[in-house]
Amino acid sequence: MSGEDKTGIRLTDEQRLDWLRLIRSDNVGPRTFRMLLQRYGSARSALAAVPDLARRGGATGPPRLCSRDDAERELKAAKSRGVILLGLGEREYPQRLRMIDDAPPLLAVRGAIAALDRPMIAIVGARNASAAGMRFAERLARDLGAADFVIVSGLARGIDAAAHRASIATGTLAVLAGGHDHVYPPEHGELAEAILAQGALVSEMPLGWEPRARDFPRRNRLISGLAVAIVVVEAAKRSGSLITARFALEQGREVFAAPGSPLDPRSEGSNGLIKEGAALVTEAADVIAVVRPILGQRTDLAVEEPERAPPPGGDPGGDERARVTQLLGPTPVSIDDLVRLSGCSPAMVRMVLLELELAGRLERHGGALVSLR
Amino acid sequence: MSGEDKTGIRLTDEQRLDWLRLIRSDNVGPRTFRMLLQRYGSARSALAAVPDLARRGGATGPPRLCSRDDAERELKAAKSRGVILLGLGEREYPQRLRMIDDAPPLLAVRGAIAALDRPMIAIVGARNASAAGMRFAERLARDLGAADFVIVSGLARGIDAAAHRASIATGTLAVLAGGHDHVYPPEHGELAEAILAQGALVSEMPLGWEPRARDFPRRNRLISGLAVAIVVVEAAKRSGSLITARFALEQGREVFAAPGSPLDPRSEGSNGLIKEGAALVTEAADVIAVVRPILGQRTDLAVEEPERAPPPGGDPGGDERARVTQLLGPTPVSIDDLVRLSGCSPAMVRMVLLELELAGRLERHGGALVSLR
Repeated sequence: MSGEDKTGIRLTDEQRLDWLRLIRSDNVGPRTFRMLLQRYGSARSALAAVPDLARRGGATGPPRLCSRDDAERELKAAKSRGVILLGLGEREYPQRLRMIDDAPPLLAVRGAIAALDRPMIAIVGARNASAAGMRFAERLARDLGAADFVIVSGLARGIDAAAHRASIATGTLAVLAGGHDHVYPPEHGELAEAILAQGALVSEMPLGWEPRARDFPRRNRLISGLAVAIVVVEAAKRSGSLITARFALEQGREVFAAPGSPLDPRSEGSNGLIKEGAALVTEAADVIAVVRPILGQRTDLAVEEPERAPPPGGDPGGDERARVTQLLGPTPVSIDDLVRLSGCSPAMVRMVLLELELAGRLERHGGALVSLR
Repeated sequence: MSGEDKTGIRLTDEQRLDWLRLIRSDNVGPRTFRMLLQRYGSARSALAAVPDLARRGGATGPPRLCSRDDAERELKAAKSRGVILLGLGEREYPQRLRMIDDAPPLLAVRGAIAALDRPMIAIVGARNASAAGMRFAERLARDLGAADFVIVSGLARGIDAAAHRASIATGTLAVLAGGHDHVYPPEHGELAEAILAQGALVSEMPLGWEPRARDFPRRNRLISGLAVAIVVVEAAKRSGSLITARFALEQGREVFAAPGSPLDPRSEGSNGLIKEGAALVTEAADVIAVVRPILGQRTDLAVEEPERAPPPGGDPGGDERARVTQLLGPTPVSIDDLVRLSGCSPAMVRMVLLELELAGRLERHGGALVSLR
């Protein structure tokens, strides 16, 4: 199976530096980054606009922007560790990951970059997996690897590690929750190194970032986002693997789950997924049969134009800002409702939300819901 | 849950004797019985017509009809063992079983006949079941029993026995592949006796009938036919439980399967059922949620009129008989094709097939396919 057709932009060194500064600045997440780039045409113009936007959004002081020095230091440190920073829309940036609406503007990659160009399938599951579960994950990873798929997982103990180990030779991708210098769990350092020959480690977090508990669910959206399908092997109720499955559904990825005994709590989550409509998987062929036709389809590329002119539309006036802000509170509301209830245009509502976000006052939830912090 | 609304006929002693003679005669199965009854209005008239029909179908000698003496002996022996013979369409005849097109004209029942009037769920599975599989079958049978369902199964070792045992107190039905004096396997004699207090043993076979291998698949259609839903727990590929599941689908019953490890061959069949669309079950509530609304629906009763006048339509002429017979060979063909290719009316084709069947020359397959023996 060859890599899918790709097009791409190429960031200049200066642009990459600006992108890094913008995404490393306070209150700028992947969605905000994308909106700012659309609005201001370039990261540099966006950086210049952020202080004013934050002030209009009600920030008490000037927002912390990542300095040019800090960004240069990160780029240099990355280079010295063999980590490259791929910009969203660049040719090497994983094609499917481009399609999710909170794709990292810059993806830090270490290893065999060519692996990013191949179709991927995620295998995730319980850390306290059973011997049978690990054996099944290995078999599946080996067989999917033999069918030319790259295996994506989270480097965790149990199922993740089993899936990585069985696909070291054919190519596997581990998505880190922290920076490249903070592989977790520490005992998987050797496994991480072994992955590099045919696969890669990827992260959206800066070097030096030690993963906190909440970084793992956030990371999980990248595991599903990279893949065309995910397979959940042994997942308990309310487990991280189910979070990955939910992301996969939101992202339009195929979701498979391995069945297990109804008496085994480690299979409650995976059996539950099947009840809710996930496909039952007992062998690699189950996945391949579903995935092959999808790979034949042209994907919808969301390529960023790096220096696109700002779209028309002015800034919100004080009245519009007040109307939108009044509708917000600690309870999440949908952006659609804000548009309907405020009487403002969708573009204007988005702009007010952007200001609030840059002021550190807005929280974004799944399903286009927002609330005040 | 109360019994579903039922209506019914009442056979006289003479009619019951005639029905028994007809169904115990050579080449008369449940479908042929029904056709003969429809055609001749009563079992007695059908018995009188069979020799001529068989001769026209090409029988070399007169067909063996069950004698009045033999039938009286069977009825007497049944009575002495506490076995009653329920006629299809009689009030006590299990309501859902009436609806299948090869329902036994007479069902031999021993035990608490009131159990037949309650909604039933079948639980079937592997004889060489795992401890976990047996435990799950027990839990499911117990919980469904507590929810007022009667548990139907086949008295086999493994899953069947586990399901029966766990529902002895709430009511369970064992469908035998042989006569009531041939409980199989022999070591389940005590279990069979224990079932009788709140449940029953049922069979369509005559007393004295020792079950052969091919009687078990045939019996399985009654397990699914009695139930509103079946649950398959641990079934290997090409197992009897999958045959029961296939019958269940043909009969429009809900099919559930318990998931199991992809590495366990005992779960290959049940996992396969889920892949093909069966609902995954991990607890009784899964079954109850699907079944409760179905029980609220009026069922389509196929009550036999015991002495209905014969429908209009003459006997096939020699030409029609030849045209249909010429189209038949050892390869199964559909009855629809016979109608189309012979140019005869569907009623006429059915009549020719009936003659051939009574002459012992016809074999009926699933899906309305027939071939010459």
